[in-house]
Order: sequence, then structure tokens, then C-alpha cells
Amino acid sequence: MLTVYDDTYFMKQALKEASLAAAAGEIPVGAVVVTQERIIARGHNQTEQLTDVTAHAEIIALTAAANFLGAKYLTDCTLYVTLEPCVMCAGALAWAQLGRIVYGAGDEKRGFMRHGRELLHPKTKLEFGILHNECAELMTGFFKSRR
Amino acid sequence: MLTVYDDTYFMKQALKEASLAAAAGEIPVGAVVVTQERIIARGHNQTEQLTDVTAHAEIIALTAAANFLGAKYLTDCTLYVTLEPCVMCAGALAWAQLGRIVYGAGDEKRGFMRHGRELLHPKTKLEFGILHNECAELMTGFFKSRR
Repeated sequence: MLTVYDDTYFMKQALKEASLAAAAGEIPVGAVVVTQERIIARGHNQTEQLTDVTAHAEIIALTAAANFLGAKYLTDCTLYVTLEPCVMCAGALAWAQLGRIVYGAGDEKRGFMRHGRELLHPKTKLEFGILHNECAELMTGFFKSRR
Repeated sequence: MLTVYDDTYFMKQALKEASLAAAAGEIPVGAVVVTQERIIARGHNQTEQLTDVTAHAEIIALTAAANFLGAKYLTDCTLYVTLEPCVMCAGALAWAQLGRIVYGAGDEKRGFMRHGRELLHPKTKLEFGILHNECAELMTGFFKSRR
């Protein structure tokens, strides 16, 4: 069966969230949480608006997903996020026992992969590079416009 | 000058927070944020009550401190926490550029130190072992009572 709901489709939705962050002057990172081909939570970076360093797209989306499901653990969910999660977010996704993480662009400086994927839950599947160029260009464009 | 406001005093306050968590059936971890010998924020673990894996004592206390100060960065603050922070909390404390972290008991399984103190901000001072026995016994007692 062909379906329109593939990784590219959902990453485009995460990119939409990232654009909302950009429009608000925030570092443009966006995320969606998906289960059974359905988006159950969205989030974008709001650290400036909320004066809160923990208000990353992933944290907002995963908290919203837990609220929606009424459950702490997101073992049957996939998180799509435009940028490689940081150490804080990787730790949060580990606690949530996320089923699968898909990220777009890498983050050499702040990404969790520098410390190894053992920061995640051992059962969490991991993929990256989906819509890499779109995700990376959003970041590059944002920082260029601020110089 | 002698002062009653030393590390032991503030760790006792963090222990009080931990007791509130225990009383609510939560893993007993408590934290306070202090600046200029004054407690500006408190937090205790509420992951069960809030159905939210991110509701650790440290995250709650640091978000409350940022709210109080109206500032994202806590460079002049000390966080006292009864247990060694996890990877998620270490990442959050790094983003907040916390001035100093003091923790009581270690956490071999889930503590961030397994991954090294480079998970914290390079300028963050770190101490541990303050009221170690009290902090550790609170945890041991809690898990014993659940068996």
C-alpha cells in the first residue's frame, strides 16, 4: 500500500513548526510526535518567548504528547525534529522511552551524538538526514539574517 | 563572619522538598535555587503527578528561578539537589549556565557523571557529598518501602 504519510511528510510538518519559531525570532527548530500515522503533538522552540532554556521543540512536543495520551511513556511514538536533539532533549526522550526518533540536520556543537547514542533509551530507533538540506538551510538562513 | 546560610543549610531545604515528593509517592528528589544567600525557587520530583517525565526537581526549580529573575541564565545561582542530576537535567543546567551545582547522593545508574562533567557548562562549579547520608537514605528508604 502506498501512503502519503511517510517520514518526509511528517518532517515537512516539523519544518512548518520550525518556521513558526523563525517568525517569532527564535532559533528555528520544530518537532511533531506521531503515532499510528497521526500527529498527536507539535512544538517549536520558544526559549526566548518563555524565558526558559528548557522550552525546546522536543520538550514541548513530548510533554504535549504525554498529556494527549495520558501516559508518561511514548514507546509507540515517533518524534520528528528538524535538528539533532541536544543533551537535555536526548535525556528527556530517553526517560520517555520514545519508540523512534527521526531528525533532519545534524548539530555538531550541541547535538547529543557527540556523547554517543547511549544517551537515548536502548530500545529507541534512530534515523537522521530526512529533508536534511531544508532543515539545515533554515538554520543557516536564520543565523545569516542575524549577522 | 559566621553565617547559618551554608551549603548544609540549603541542602536541608532541598531535603525538605524531597520529603514532599516522598509523601506524594514520588521518587524523593528535591532541589532549591539560591542566589545571594536567598532561596528564589524550589522544586521536587512530580513525574507521576504530572504524567511528565521532564518534571524532575531540577527542571521545576530552574524554570521557577528563571521566572523569578526574568532571565534565562542563572550564572549567579547555586542549585542544591539531593541526588546527582540525570543527563536531561545536566543538559538543562548547562543551557542555564548555572553558576554552581551542589548535589548530595550520587546516582550510579542514571547520573550524568557517567558521561563526564563536560555535559555541564564549562564555567559551572560542581560539588557533591553534602549531607550525603541523609540524601542517600531517603532514596534507599523509599525503594525499600515499595518492595
